[in-house]
Amino acid sequence: MRLSQLCAVMVENGLKATVEGEDRVVTGVNTLDDAGGGDLSFVSNPKYLRALQSTSAAAVVVGDGVTPPNGLPIIRCADPYAAVTVAIVVLHGYRKHPQWGLSDRAFIHPTAKLGADPNVAGGATIAAKVTMGDHCTVYPGCYVADGVRIGHGCTLYPNVVIYDHCVLGDRVTIHAGSVIGEDGLGYAPRDKKWFKIPQIGRAVLGDDVEIGANCTIDRATLGQTEIGDGTKFGNLIVIGHGTKIGADCLFVGQVGVAGSVTVGRHVTLAGQVGVAGHLTIGDGVRAGGRAGISGDVEPGAEVLGSPAVPIERAKRSFFALQKLPEWIQRIKDLEREVAALREKLGE
Amino acid sequence: MRLSQLCAVMVENGLKATVEGEDRVVTGVNTLDDAGGGDLSFVSNPKYLRALQSTSAAAVVVGDGVTPPNGLPIIRCADPYAAVTVAIVVLHGYRKHPQWGLSDRAFIHPTAKLGADPNVAGGATIAAKVTMGDHCTVYPGCYVADGVRIGHGCTLYPNVVIYDHCVLGDRVTIHAGSVIGEDGLGYAPRDKKWFKIPQIGRAVLGDDVEIGANCTIDRATLGQTEIGDGTKFGNLIVIGHGTKIGADCLFVGQVGVAGSVTVGRHVTLAGQVGVAGHLTIGDGVRAGGRAGISGDVEPGAEVLGSPAVPIERAKRSFFALQKLPEWIQRIKDLEREVAALREKLGE
Amino acid sequence: MRLSQLCAVMVENGLKATVEGEDRVVTGVNTLDDAGGGDLSFVSNPKYLRALQSTSAAAVVVGDGVTPPNGLPIIRCADPYAAVTVAIVVLHGYRKHPQWGLSDRAFIHPTAKLGADPNVAGGATIAAKVTMGDHCTVYPGCYVADGVRIGHGCTLYPNVVIYDHCVLGDRVTIHAGSVIGEDGLGYAPRDKKWFKIPQIGRAVLGDDVEIGANCTIDRATLGQTEIGDGTKFGNLIVIGHGTKIGADCLFVGQVGVAGSVTVGRHVTLAGQVGVAGHLTIGDGVRAGGRAGISGDVEPGAEVLGSPAVPIERAKRSFFALQKLPEWIQRIKDLEREVAALREKLGE
Repeated sequence: MRLSQLCAVMVENGLKATVEGEDRVVTGVNTLDDAGGGDLSFVSNPKYLRALQSTSAAAVVVGDGVTPPNGLPIIRCADPYAAVTVAIVVLHGYRKHPQWGLSDRAFIHPTAKLGADPNVAGGATIAAKVTMGDHCTVYPGCYVADGVRIGHGCTLYPNVVIYDHCVLGDRVTIHAGSVIGEDGLGYAPRDKKWFKIPQIGRAVLGDDVEIGANCTIDRATLGQTEIGDGTKFGNLIVIGHGTKIGADCLFVGQVGVAGSVTVGRHVTLAGQVGVAGHLTIGDGVRAGGRAGISGDVEPGAEVLGSPAVPIERAKRSFFALQKLPEWIQRIKDLEREVAALREKLGE
Repeated sequence: MRLSQLCAVMVENGLKATVEGEDRVVTGVNTLDDAGGGDLSFVSNPKYLRALQSTSAAAVVVGDGVTPPNGLPIIRCADPYAAVTVAIVVLHGYRKHPQWGLSDRAFIHPTAKLGADPNVAGGATIAAKVTMGDHCTVYPGCYVADGVRIGHGCTLYPNVVIYDHCVLGDRVTIHAGSVIGEDGLGYAPRDKKWFKIPQIGRAVLGDDVEIGANCTIDRATLGQTEIGDGTKFGNLIVIGHGTKIGADCLFVGQVGVAGSVTVGRHVTLAGQVGVAGHLTIGDGVRAGGRAGISGDVEPGAEVLGSPAVPIERAKRSFFALQKLPEWIQRIKDLEREVAALREKLGE
Repeated sequence: MRLSQLCAVMVENGLKATVEGEDRVVTGVNTLDDAGGGDLSFVSNPKYLRALQSTSAAAVVVGDGVTPPNGLPIIRCADPYAAVTVAIVVLHGYRKHPQWGLSDRAFIHPTAKLGADPNVAGGATIAAKVTMGDHCTVYPGCYVADGVRIGHGCTLYPNVVIYDHCVLGDRVTIHAGSVIGEDGLGYAPRDKKWFKIPQIGRAVLGDDVEIGANCTIDRATLGQTEIGDGTKFGNLIVIGHGTKIGADCLFVGQVGVAGSVTVGRHVTLAGQVGVAGHLTIGDGVRAGGRAGISGDVEPGAEVLGSPAVPIERAKRSFFALQKLPEWIQRIKDLEREVAALREKLGE
């Protein structure tokens, strides 16, 4: 595909993009380091500008103000990341799943109701009274328990487990090994032992949710745990029972949210963030890596640290802490000087 | 079931409970927000008192001093959480597993010895010389390796893996995707490479242990890793090789305990707590969320922070740290004033 | 086997070792506490010297300067940990896998090419165009996706998932439930929604890599995520897309490394360490437990804390922080004294 054709698709997608230099044919997209002769590459992070010197790419997508050496052809776009995303979709597309149809080695309960065009592998289990929409793919080793409801166009990668009576919207994708709707840590103390409370709620995932690998999302004790439409999770994320996450959130790997938390829309939690139970996190909140959120967070706030505080305060405290030994020295100096003054004044 | 009948069961369970208002029939338990016409609900956390105003529940369980508006019938109990637990058990009960018997699509080694009433799904594997007690349920995708010993009444949810020669007591429940007895990180450095030490020990789980989803419990290098009777784990918990955890502990999600640690009884570790290797944690210790325990902890202590210190000290340090920029300003002010005094005294 | 024979093997392995006392026969290796009559045990950590008093071991491996009571026979070696490793290998060896050959209940795609002596269990799936070297073991529930390339002598424990087109070197071991090559968190923001970027790269694991249980290693968006030869991972570790880890690293449980990070050789990350995206970590770096690495780290540095700083600075700051309330008191005292001096001077 010629750069000009790709550029046209970018423009169709609402981006302002122009070709500069030779209108080359590109066949794929790759990093600056790994690109071969027919590859388009890109620079969005200024950290990688230097690699422009040595790339073997046929062309690069760059932002405003960047001009590669050697007259390398470019597609210029103010948002090179968005532009190259378009190029990847056009030139490569999304993963094509193996086509099993309804494998005769899958374990499908006779009371399960599957929609049109099912793609269920051997070694997958669909239990009693499950309903599943059209065009769903279920990889080997998945277990979809009794009474689960799955929408249209969902993909369960290998070894995903959905506990009984949980609900998935349309176009939900769950990566390998994730577990949805397991019992939360619901025990009542009784005579210094832990008495198990039946976990009779469920977990409900909205439309267009994507969950990474080896995550665990508790069912609610009562009612439901909710993951809002369009929300995306990285890997190894834990969501506690009864927690409700809003739409279009982004949670990075190893985030842990305790139970009964309410999280708004468009919330970004960076890697290893933890959120204590029963809190309310407002719309648009952003928490930096490893933030430990132990109180409610106002909409739009950016927090950092453990316990998490507004990011400017967290940084100020951190820098002050780093200089603390020096300040302690200055306190000692002051004490000496004050003692000297006192002596001089005959105290 | 009438409120008075439910109340009677609560009393049988050792709770002091009384009905106030109409002796309604309830058919289920739900949250204040989600409760429908026949549902019993409850308030134990004062944070949720407000929701009493708008609930559609037929009745609520409340603690002392709480009176809902509109003459809503109540069951009053000093411990509403315990009372509603009883109600959930009576009205809903625990999960009923699918009944597979001994599926002819399970992989059962001829030398495995299964107790009475086995419930083993297609796609589960029971390897050589396994012994399994009566009334055990093994979901699809589980792998029970050579020589594992499982007690009576155990449940392995889908895709649980028990490595060779590990031991489970009676009534052990392991949620989906958890792995018991994998090799720990046992390597000896040799010529700047890592030489693998055979991990010949095992992991042993006591009676009534419940393990969350996607946890990993290392086998010991030598001897055994132990999880005490009645101990309960959340999800994504890591236990290192040779660590011994006492009875009736509660570990919340994403806790990580390194190897060769000794943990007492009734220890509570909140979410994302980490414990370094070779430590001793006394009976009854409680560690707050994200605590990083890097030294032995005395029995009964409550710790917080990373590195973890007694909770009062952790809080004091945290508040002092937050005010540190202000204290630095006050040091600067003092320096100015002392300089002025010195000048005045002709130094 | 006699102590003298074992000792000879240790010497063959390059260790200086000598027998002192009776040349007993030993049949196994165990901890001091668990050792029975025929067992060899060892002390490498001085913390456990006391247990020498009460052990029932037949003999012990000890370091220089340690002499057990009661004339217990010993193998003395400056590095007792290395010596006992040799003993464990000799007396116990490594795990013997069940022998399935090529199970007729495995799901093997006709286009997959398997090397000599395959050992593939029932319930394992080898998808289209996979190539697998000689002497590989694949446990039940594993899913090896389209186009994956696996070297010789690899072991995939149960329920391991390798996404399409990923590459494993020779003698790679992956423990149960780990996922290699899942899509990373690659989304472009578009109209306040997250637009999925096809993840067309792959993950490549070098020779002699060992990965713990329930880890997740993202494929790259473009190009490849890399794990260097001889690198070993604990459990529940997350590696982000496009990250490149050098050879012979050791990562302890629950480590999380974000995307596009470059990690050198011989890097040790202790438990729960987090590394932010796009950083460079030099050769030989060591990060203490829970370190939060938010900037590049020089080769050979040892860091601690969150954000991570050189270990001496981290410790100094921590101790200063613990004493901070006391220093604040001293500032208040100074303020009082200076005020008194000012008054005295008639200001």
